[in-house]
Amino acid sequence: MDQIKIFSPATVANVSCGFDVLGFCLDTIGDEMIIKKTSQKGITISKIDGYKLPFETENNVAGVSALALYNDANPDFGFDIEIYKKIKPGSGIGSSSASAAGSVFAMNELLGRPYNKTQLTNFAMKGEALASHCEHADNLAPALFGGFTLVKSLAPLKVLQLPTPNELFAVVIHPQIEIKTSESRAILPQEVPLKNAITQWSNVGSLVHALHTEDYSLLSASLEDVIVEPHRSKLIPHFEKVKQTALKHGALGCGISGSGPSVFSLCKGEVIAKKVKDAIQNVYSQTGIDFEIHLSKINTEGIKIL
Amino acid sequence: MDQIKIFSPATVANVSCGFDVLGFCLDTIGDEMIIKKTSQKGITISKIDGYKLPFETENNVAGVSALALYNDANPDFGFDIEIYKKIKPGSGIGSSSASAAGSVFAMNELLGRPYNKTQLTNFAMKGEALASHCEHADNLAPALFGGFTLVKSLAPLKVLQLPTPNELFAVVIHPQIEIKTSESRAILPQEVPLKNAITQWSNVGSLVHALHTEDYSLLSASLEDVIVEPHRSKLIPHFEKVKQTALKHGALGCGISGSGPSVFSLCKGEVIAKKVKDAIQNVYSQTGIDFEIHLSKINTEGIKIL
Repeated sequence: MDQIKIFSPATVANVSCGFDVLGFCLDTIGDEMIIKKTSQKGITISKIDGYKLPFETENNVAGVSALALYNDANPDFGFDIEIYKKIKPGSGIGSSSASAAGSVFAMNELLGRPYNKTQLTNFAMKGEALASHCEHADNLAPALFGGFTLVKSLAPLKVLQLPTPNELFAVVIHPQIEIKTSESRAILPQEVPLKNAITQWSNVGSLVHALHTEDYSLLSASLEDVIVEPHRSKLIPHFEKVKQTALKHGALGCGISGSGPSVFSLCKGEVIAKKVKDAIQNVYSQTGIDFEIHLSKINTEGIKIL
Repeated sequence: MDQIKIFSPATVANVSCGFDVLGFCLDTIGDEMIIKKTSQKGITISKIDGYKLPFETENNVAGVSALALYNDANPDFGFDIEIYKKIKPGSGIGSSSASAAGSVFAMNELLGRPYNKTQLTNFAMKGEALASHCEHADNLAPALFGGFTLVKSLAPLKVLQLPTPNELFAVVIHPQIEIKTSESRAILPQEVPLKNAITQWSNVGSLVHALHTEDYSLLSASLEDVIVEPHRSKLIPHFEKVKQTALKHGALGCGISGSGPSVFSLCKGEVIAKKVKDAIQNVYSQTGIDFEIHLSKINTEGIKIL
């Protein structure tokens, strides 16, 4: 196999209660990438379609993660990357992670899978760091492992694959405004009330239990964020209206996707998800702000070979 | 049935990462109580053996929780309570919870079980509040439900029963010094670094996952407390030495039981638990401080009828 085409999915990090540790993988939104073996050593990026991103390997998220793997594997050939970018950078649904994870996933396939998913996540974190100025894995883990993931620790990297209840669907609205991850981090307090932290870890514990027991009602009760949402929601126009609309139409929960501006809702079953999508669409159509809206089953596979 | 004798177990709250929400139930340490129907209405306490505690119903933890249930059930007879107290008050292994949970559990049996465990926990919280000046359930839940529990929320009360891996044993050392829950709470900061809170909720999530998957290694990695232990451990003589000894001899983790001074270790298998117990005993014997030490399987049943 000398070349491979992949679908590298968008992902939702934080999932309300699990700031910096929880995430899940989407199915209908994602980039496509073609990675080819080249006789010349090194990593090149020959095509970037969809959004304007740097072609220099060291300045491109997919390039940096590719280099991390390449330098470790040290093969006697090189790789060329084509990126068909569908996820807008700065959308809050793991645009940089899709690029960073996609290149290393594809290279690993072409090399005969010498690396496991944790190792791939480690390489991809180097690319992710270029975009967000710190190494994190809350979007990378669901992209590479699929389903719901919990990043237990970064050093050493330990990713837990959580079970994904079968009937779970996500609706994601992406208002076409940009919030930089760095800005979105700066708005957060360095210290939080112990009382709120307790609420948050009880929610993380109960969310994990709810996934294991397929308890949708408990999942709904766990999708609460008393730490981050009160601050970041101010950066997202009409957040509260979207959230109340989603809940009113049957969503299990609704919160900020990653650092925003995208907002996710989780729903039991496609019928409810469609209702929630239509209702949010209706609300946002009246705001004058451009948006995209997606409905997706939870993708339990992660990156896919096309 | 006109009278019932029960074993009301000691419990370990917090379990390192889960301050105020996690707990588990012990098997070899606990109070005994005899509750009898009486023709006279109301609640009396006719015997308290072991420790000096108030006989007036309204000033006794078991009495206050009994009254809460009694006033709700409003039967045309009364109850008398005998308490054979084995768990020293202020030990940090749920002494007041054993009393508060025991009386309502026994009365519920004598009444033909009109209440479920959540309702019993709610009644028992009234008694617990007398001891600790605030309503909480992190010791009551494991006493009444058995095994590992997570208190998802207090209002409305929602207790989750987590799975208990079969080979799990606890060693609990109780240095014979008293730390009041109120003092132990006062030493805690009102605000905590967000960074540490993230570590804590990632540990709570991974601990719940570890219990579901019987992953002892992950359980071990999750038994970490970066929020409370750094403060409270100062109140417990030789805490660090005990902890290092437990870990060196194979314990999965070691932390403060409730608000202390008791210290728990969790171990995989009885053989390791015995080694850990002997090693801790050896260390503490040289300190000049009196102590009791217990080895117990995790009690998945909770309160038992004798």
